[in-house]
Amino acid sequence: MTQDLLITDIRPMGGAPSALLIRRGRIAGLGPEVEAPPGVPVEPGGGALLIPGLVEAHTHLDKSLLGMGWRPHQAGPRLIDKIDTERRLKREWGIDPRRQSARQVVQSIGHGTTHIRTHVDIDTELGLSGLEGVMATRDAYRDVIDIEIVAFPQSGLLARPGTLALLEAGLRLGADVVGGLDPCAIDRDPAGQLDAVFGLAQRFGRPVDIHLHEPGLLGAFSMELIFERTLALGMQGQVVISHAFCLGDADTAMVDGLLDQIAALDIGIMTTGSASRPVPPVAKLRARGIRVCSGSDGIRDTWGPYGDADMLERAMLLGLRNNFRRDDELEMALSVCTEGGAAVMRLPHYGLRVGDCADVVLVQAETLAEAVVAHPPRRLVVKRGQVVARDGVALPRAP
Amino acid sequence: MTQDLLITDIRPMGGAPSALLIRRGRIAGLGPEVEAPPGVPVEPGGGALLIPGLVEAHTHLDKSLLGMGWRPHQAGPRLIDKIDTERRLKREWGIDPRRQSARQVVQSIGHGTTHIRTHVDIDTELGLSGLEGVMATRDAYRDVIDIEIVAFPQSGLLARPGTLALLEAGLRLGADVVGGLDPCAIDRDPAGQLDAVFGLAQRFGRPVDIHLHEPGLLGAFSMELIFERTLALGMQGQVVISHAFCLGDADTAMVDGLLDQIAALDIGIMTTGSASRPVPPVAKLRARGIRVCSGSDGIRDTWGPYGDADMLERAMLLGLRNNFRRDDELEMALSVCTEGGAAVMRLPHYGLRVGDCADVVLVQAETLAEAVVAHPPRRLVVKRGQVVARDGVALPRAP
Repeated sequence: MTQDLLITDIRPMGGAPSALLIRRGRIAGLGPEVEAPPGVPVEPGGGALLIPGLVEAHTHLDKSLLGMGWRPHQAGPRLIDKIDTERRLKREWGIDPRRQSARQVVQSIGHGTTHIRTHVDIDTELGLSGLEGVMATRDAYRDVIDIEIVAFPQSGLLARPGTLALLEAGLRLGADVVGGLDPCAIDRDPAGQLDAVFGLAQRFGRPVDIHLHEPGLLGAFSMELIFERTLALGMQGQVVISHAFCLGDADTAMVDGLLDQIAALDIGIMTTGSASRPVPPVAKLRARGIRVCSGSDGIRDTWGPYGDADMLERAMLLGLRNNFRRDDELEMALSVCTEGGAAVMRLPHYGLRVGDCADVVLVQAETLAEAVVAHPPRRLVVKRGQVVARDGVALPRAP
Repeated sequence: MTQDLLITDIRPMGGAPSALLIRRGRIAGLGPEVEAPPGVPVEPGGGALLIPGLVEAHTHLDKSLLGMGWRPHQAGPRLIDKIDTERRLKREWGIDPRRQSARQVVQSIGHGTTHIRTHVDIDTELGLSGLEGVMATRDAYRDVIDIEIVAFPQSGLLARPGTLALLEAGLRLGADVVGGLDPCAIDRDPAGQLDAVFGLAQRFGRPVDIHLHEPGLLGAFSMELIFERTLALGMQGQVVISHAFCLGDADTAMVDGLLDQIAALDIGIMTTGSASRPVPPVAKLRARGIRVCSGSDGIRDTWGPYGDADMLERAMLLGLRNNFRRDDELEMALSVCTEGGAAVMRLPHYGLRVGDCADVVLVQAETLAEAVVAHPPRRLVVKRGQVVARDGVALPRAP
């Protein structure tokens, strides 16, 4: 399925007009002088910007309600309300992980996303059915998008006996990453939960990605437990903390202390730029060299009604939340949604250098900064040399 | 220019399929049984939602950079940096208030805005040139949108001798409302500035709309000075406080005390739902019966690069900032951007009742809540019975 292609009249990262030559799905040339060998199909770029594929580094493909009609939000305000309501509605509404993940994937492709890290619920009610559904979608769309799966104990790990064994089975079946969440607030046994999560990671040689919504000092305490285990097991560079609301705390001395350790242990941070919660200060993290990525989180699911999987709009939301106004700041927000995701997910051959996978997006804008604030429909999306979306519409179909 | 029109197959506020009959620019009938008399043109509604016109209750038409090419943000982080940088760039870049306001107005019409309250800078350098430019735009587009103008001392009032006389001249020339800003932080003489602002309002019998960015206790102090003058002059119901960041303070006892007085004095509050600043809690204000409106604030100007004048997207941003998830909450966000603006601006004949001005918008969505989170391009925009936009594109042209 991978292809040869020449894209003419594009401005890589806003630079000088160039052409991009793709051979066998890899970048073979990019510059003003690049030309196509005979027989290579040509796509006119129309003067658009060329950026690398957008990276959706945190979402929940298994539970979107896309295409199921409007369903009013039912859950109460607490985290546990959302978890319990979701388990109930999954039964009542028949939220099919295979169908729903395919629908969201197709929407993501239309917006220029070329890589996804998805958390998939595993619990004692669902077992591995969510994982199996998302794995089927990953397989069905493997030529047009890369999907990495986190085995995610959404309903708690120790609190629900049997979940640990299911996570282990999930890793054997095909999940890539060990997930976790709120070791104090949900499992009420932070050391026990984190020992179990890191134990699995060690045993299977897999990275870790932990949802940490706990704010303030409670979140800081959980982070310290994560730091201790990362260090003790030599897992530097293999741990991600998602949300990390405690890094948005007003106590900047506490936050600075946490950031020192995050940088030293090369822990990645995922932030959606939530407008209603404290959030990690992106510029401060990046200035310390911390890998920062972003994601849509849930899209139209039982947790909330928002989202349409556009990671360029996400860059705008990150910019609004972080009070970014200058071009270099808006470019940083874009970088979080491209290279940042690639760095966190350790994607091989990601970028615009010769030899990188030809996963690229064309955006009609004057500058990268304008692309972020205006986030117009993507002119063209290419995955490993294959055109997968035009003018905001994905070519692959959803069920 | 006002017209007769029948719009069929619409769902008013998400209700049962209906038709809307417009005669001489007013709503003559709305319901399932409504039919057109002979000779009235018919617009098929395609099953879209019908909502009243969107209300842009706080923007700055005189200074957008729309259509002037991408201009990187230059100003420093403080409010005074933005004010000083803007005065300089207005000269250097030739930001023409007439042309720029027309461009933004046309963009607003395309998104379904039927009423605008704009603040227009008046200072000792510009004199009344900004006001004259926006008044020319108001006149040029008077058949397709209603524009109310606030005479706004952006660079300070007492701090720049001569400004007060210019504001007075502006009100004589055609401004509708007396503006002000940050009486402590900018003018450094809160009692003096507010006495001048309220003095003008009294003398001309005009309402007041004050930008108040001052946070925490400083903002609360300025608010109290505003309350005192509102009460002393009997100006209940005629004062608006824009931004009102101090109402987003963590000290909820202080905030509740302020809200008591705001409700008692019937002061209107404008919030953009800024993601990076403390903001007034919309649901709490509405529960007390306080009139709340919203606006885009500056759109692609020297203050910041964001914004495209879509008040339905603004409702989504309000929802994200206020953590709205339920349908009734999303409908509240929409109401702030429609009826809320009308209540704050005291718009006569606004709404969907028989006799109201036929200022309506068609949105293709299943529910009002979906209209907010998805904010698709508007199917149709009608101003006093005249079609002014189709499929997201305004019919009037911009310079």
